[in-house]
Amino acid sequence: MAALQAIEPGHFRIPLPEVLSDSTHGEIAAFELNTVRLRDADGAEGVGYTYTVGRNGAAVHATLVELAEIMAGEDADAIEHLWHKGWWALHYGGRGGPTVLGLSAFDIALWDLKAVRAGLPLWKLLGGFDPRVPVYAGGIDLDLSVDALLRQTDGNLERGFRAIKMKVGRKRLQEDVERVRAMREHLGADFPLMADANMKWGIDEAIRAARAFQPFELTWLEEPTIPDDPAGHARIVREGGVPIAAGENLRSLWEFKLYIAGGGVTFPEPDVTNCGGVTSFMKIAHLAEAFNLPVTSHGAHDVTVHLLAACPNRSYLEAHGFGLDRYIADPLAIRDGVALAPDRPGHGIRFDWSGLAALAR
Amino acid sequence: MAALQAIEPGHFRIPLPEVLSDSTHGEIAAFELNTVRLRDADGAEGVGYTYTVGRNGAAVHATLVELAEIMAGEDADAIEHLWHKGWWALHYGGRGGPTVLGLSAFDIALWDLKAVRAGLPLWKLLGGFDPRVPVYAGGIDLDLSVDALLRQTDGNLERGFRAIKMKVGRKRLQEDVERVRAMREHLGADFPLMADANMKWGIDEAIRAARAFQPFELTWLEEPTIPDDPAGHARIVREGGVPIAAGENLRSLWEFKLYIAGGGVTFPEPDVTNCGGVTSFMKIAHLAEAFNLPVTSHGAHDVTVHLLAACPNRSYLEAHGFGLDRYIADPLAIRDGVALAPDRPGHGIRFDWSGLAALAR
Repeated sequence: MAALQAIEPGHFRIPLPEVLSDSTHGEIAAFELNTVRLRDADGAEGVGYTYTVGRNGAAVHATLVELAEIMAGEDADAIEHLWHKGWWALHYGGRGGPTVLGLSAFDIALWDLKAVRAGLPLWKLLGGFDPRVPVYAGGIDLDLSVDALLRQTDGNLERGFRAIKMKVGRKRLQEDVERVRAMREHLGADFPLMADANMKWGIDEAIRAARAFQPFELTWLEEPTIPDDPAGHARIVREGGVPIAAGENLRSLWEFKLYIAGGGVTFPEPDVTNCGGVTSFMKIAHLAEAFNLPVTSHGAHDVTVHLLAACPNRSYLEAHGFGLDRYIADPLAIRDGVALAPDRPGHGIRFDWSGLAALAR
Repeated sequence: MAALQAIEPGHFRIPLPEVLSDSTHGEIAAFELNTVRLRDADGAEGVGYTYTVGRNGAAVHATLVELAEIMAGEDADAIEHLWHKGWWALHYGGRGGPTVLGLSAFDIALWDLKAVRAGLPLWKLLGGFDPRVPVYAGGIDLDLSVDALLRQTDGNLERGFRAIKMKVGRKRLQEDVERVRAMREHLGADFPLMADANMKWGIDEAIRAARAFQPFELTWLEEPTIPDDPAGHARIVREGGVPIAAGENLRSLWEFKLYIAGGGVTFPEPDVTNCGGVTSFMKIAHLAEAFNLPVTSHGAHDVTVHLLAACPNRSYLEAHGFGLDRYIADPLAIRDGVALAPDRPGHGIRFDWSGLAALAR
């Protein structure tokens, strides 16, 4: 039994190299990193993390402090048992929000520990499909001029990306259409191009936008509206004529079930750091497989590359890690549109803890 | 403009006079009280609160600290504006869980402040229907023997209750049936009796239980299964033949919409301290009215009595305040099955702040 001996939450504020913006979150000058480090009775270690776009990291930290108390001495290998113990212990003041971010980080650490103990990279422990995962660049570029957007795109091509996502949701739809057209012309007909509206629109507005984007053959249109309306999403899928990605703001397997079983999504897009961790991500991916759908991802590419490398229905991995690469040894490399899941045991992420210490909250 | 000058969160742990238990939460020895006190530029004050069954209050507190920063200097009368400002500022690490509990407390305080400034009791500010609200006793009694259950019931009758809810969800359904039968025989055919399963069952199991309870004419069967399955609830409503109450674990207007518009609930049961506050509770009540449904409530009876007193489709108020009455001046009185919404300005709750100070976390 891998009894948990130490559970150490951390909370950091990481300034971004440049201020980001999208149609919903406004300006993002920093993000918050919440970590949890586990050590079992044999001295083996596991690390998990989650992040916010600048608020509520203290609430995530409070959840991780509760989980440390709830999980002390438990068998780290009994992950399903611990996940449900945490879910129900925190259910009344939990079930969504920062609680799930905290539980996700804890679950990632448990899976890392299990894979480290087994001497296997996470993607092999989870089943193993193909370590070469197609990847796309998630651009945060809504406020850029068209020229700057194309320059950023050229930079992404130079960095090895062969699929790119842009933001939409400008004040007038016609502006979005012109930006998508400029990107399509710049990249050529065959290049995989996605667009992300960050929940900007109502349902009829989203359908109108999707139809306006049809000539540009988007791989997907992402988060056209708020995550609280599965029936509205189903209308957008049916009537908009463009594949729909959604899920970065869904917080459980059951929320994904509403979308996947309800015809409200083409590319389910869980974020391992906020959907309930590796445990929930893999169930969501398998649920998508059962419904004949691909699965893509949001954020935390260094963990998620393992999960998509384990899934036969994997689509593109989103490469989007804020400024976190500066605090990770051997950050994920992108070559010719592909990220390679590492062969180190566990997820293989080694944080620069002394560098992070200066950013502790 | 009622500019917010002070926003003061508080976090307390309130021991219960006796340990409670139900089919899901296990033993509850204490609850957590999170408060927020507002003061505007004119010196007027508003108070809001929320609570947990013992965990995650620190995360709620962290959310209230964020809200204090987000809301400083804002116009306290612009409640819809502030609600949405808070919802979106905390959305990424929020949307559910402790974030909504914190936002609910803040929203209650804003409505209290507005009513105090207007010199109106909250129930009149919100529209005004009837200050006499029928009330039921929410018993937490799953582990009591049948004799002790009936003795507790006699105590509730003596305290003025004319409607009572009992717990179900024992190991064998037949035990539940015998307990419900004993209560029905004890109370007589006309007495309003409800039963609460606290999410114990799967869908088919819940339908089987509902059918077994049919002879006892329950006013409603509450939370037969997890709050993550609106389609499952719709089956229970259609196939079980017993009215279904649900909602204490739903965390937004949109979650209630899935149940109300989807035929998954007969008695929507929002908790003003965790559904998004007064703002969300009233929208949920009105949504229920539009769907020709009554609205009941969960917890926080001293605030909620005002909300149900404002709603033409109001059903029973749940009287269930843990041990909070000991720290409130003039706690809500129950007479002959009715609670009277106070005529004091605001919600009229006055906490014993010096008594609470000894319980601060």
